[in-house]
Amino acid sequence: VPDAPWIAVVGPGRADVAQLEAAEAVGAGVAAAGAVLVCGGLGGVMEAACRGARSRRGMTVGLLPGVDRTDANGWVEVAIPTGLGEARNALVVRAADAVIAIGGAWGTLSEIGLALKTGRRVIGLGTFEITQAGRRVEGIVAVESPEEAVAEALARRAPPH
Amino acid sequence: VPDAPWIAVVGPGRADVAQLEAAEAVGAGVAAAGAVLVCGGLGGVMEAACRGARSRRGMTVGLLPGVDRTDANGWVEVAIPTGLGEARNALVVRAADAVIAIGGAWGTLSEIGLALKTGRRVIGLGTFEITQAGRRVEGIVAVESPEEAVAEALARRAPPH
Amino acid sequence: VPDAPWIAVVGPGRADVAQLEAAEAVGAGVAAAGAVLVCGGLGGVMEAACRGARSRRGMTVGLLPGVDRTDANGWVEVAIPTGLGEARNALVVRAADAVIAIGGAWGTLSEIGLALKTGRRVIGLGTFEITQAGRRVEGIVAVESPEEAVAEALARRAPPH
Amino acid sequence: VPDAPWIAVVGPGRADVAQLEAAEAVGAGVAAAGAVLVCGGLGGVMEAACRGARSRRGMTVGLLPGVDRTDANGWVEVAIPTGLGEARNALVVRAADAVIAIGGAWGTLSEIGLALKTGRRVIGLGTFEITQAGRRVEGIVAVESPEEAVAEALARRAPPH
Repeated sequence: VPDAPWIAVVGPGRADVAQLEAAEAVGAGVAAAGAVLVCGGLGGVMEAACRGARSRRGMTVGLLPGVDRTDANGWVEVAIPTGLGEARNALVVRAADAVIAIGGAWGTLSEIGLALKTGRRVIGLGTFEITQAGRRVEGIVAVESPEEAVAEALARRAPPH
Repeated sequence: VPDAPWIAVVGPGRADVAQLEAAEAVGAGVAAAGAVLVCGGLGGVMEAACRGARSRRGMTVGLLPGVDRTDANGWVEVAIPTGLGEARNALVVRAADAVIAIGGAWGTLSEIGLALKTGRRVIGLGTFEITQAGRRVEGIVAVESPEEAVAEALARRAPPH
Repeated sequence: VPDAPWIAVVGPGRADVAQLEAAEAVGAGVAAAGAVLVCGGLGGVMEAACRGARSRRGMTVGLLPGVDRTDANGWVEVAIPTGLGEARNALVVRAADAVIAIGGAWGTLSEIGLALKTGRRVIGLGTFEITQAGRRVEGIVAVESPEEAVAEALARRAPPH
Repeated sequence: VPDAPWIAVVGPGRADVAQLEAAEAVGAGVAAAGAVLVCGGLGGVMEAACRGARSRRGMTVGLLPGVDRTDANGWVEVAIPTGLGEARNALVVRAADAVIAIGGAWGTLSEIGLALKTGRRVIGLGTFEITQAGRRVEGIVAVESPEEAVAEALARRAPPH
């Protein structure tokens, strides 16, 4: 575990079936590759990703916004109740070598911004497209499948720093 | 000061002339309206906004990422060295009733996400447009001028919570 | 304000009359010396210190544990709702050049520890004495009066860092 | 792991031989009891405690002050680079049901204060004694051996909250 890559999976706490299936497949792929899955520890995309990772006996880490460890979804192996509220999003990103965003919610957008700001690779699966003055902003690597998301996250992950 | 509205101005630490002029005008407008200007305390849009606010004798608060108070730009009246790194973006947003985003950088995107997540109104002046599955996402109120930005931020600010 | 020394006053949110009187005198002394008073923003010693500082038109900054600016006591000029819970104690200490502890509560003890860890001078007025293996631990400068506390805090404050 | 008790071991990053031996024995005891060991992730007491826990195949979690996962000592299984500096002490305490303090350093004192403030049981093994107005302050449960420390930490741990 100490030398494994860490991949964050971020996405809405309330997600639709397609997003949940994608998240579960991403989590399984992350674990199958021997990587640690880190997330915000709650429901929706986070829970599905953890469930997928546990189906391959992967390590799952949840960094919770509140102070109660039992808020974590049932597939989190190591739950850290940060008590930082939404500021914990910065810790999810810091813990990871690359970030996979599935679907989109405002918290997800903040994690994408923090990841790009701190030089992490961001892979997007059905997440936001961001434009400025009519031009698409570089940054998010858009992919079409969970397999592609995992491959992109692991192939080009930034070195830990 | 205790009962004044608080407006966050967020934007890149390195900005072009048009963004700096817009930020200075926004800062002046915030102060002229009796509101407190809060920002990340550094250069670019943050510095120009503070300079504008000080030109109207407004209160300026800078929440710095590092541990050194003297990192603040010269127009910050109250500088708080949070030592939280990029996690301080969450504190900038929490301190504010509304957020005005000028231009766009990855840190700015994270602040937009955090503000929308926590129910603050976000006003955009030349900032990102965000779409998902080809449709524009509601959330950022796009305006055309500094005056409009200040008016929107103050007219509909959320109650403190 | 930007070049003034910053003095933190820490102590229990529920304090006895002697502690409140001491805190008010310390706050007045801090403001009379042109220093900024920073504290946790709540009641008891924090409120009395802010009231003292405002009686001399000093600047008072409150770094609150919660997300609601209106939790601040009525004498805080600039209230920052950090949303970090007790982790905000680290920010109170970081914002200050020196720390004056009045009385003692567990939160106060944590602030004393953080201040000494990060090289701030700590002045104690009726606060804890700390021993280890039967010997008194150096670190807290014990004083007998509010005047002495302010003088010690200002005379030997560490440079901002 | 999800249902196990979490015990924090706190103490100086530079420790003497007796403290290191005590920390290693405490770590082994924590792991032998099926509890998760959480600490600040660095050297000295933290490293010895993690080594002890790993000698019994226990789970070790390190919450680091910096942003680099590789700062963790070699016995940390799950390393979280919080980037919060000393504010991470609050997270170490929050993650735990009870705190064992071995030896004493200023950071340790802050963790003792935070733990008592938030209702965690604190067990002291050769750590500070704290008095106020000449009377010993209740709070730290002083023990004489690593075995006693582990037994006290596990017997009376507070419920997660």
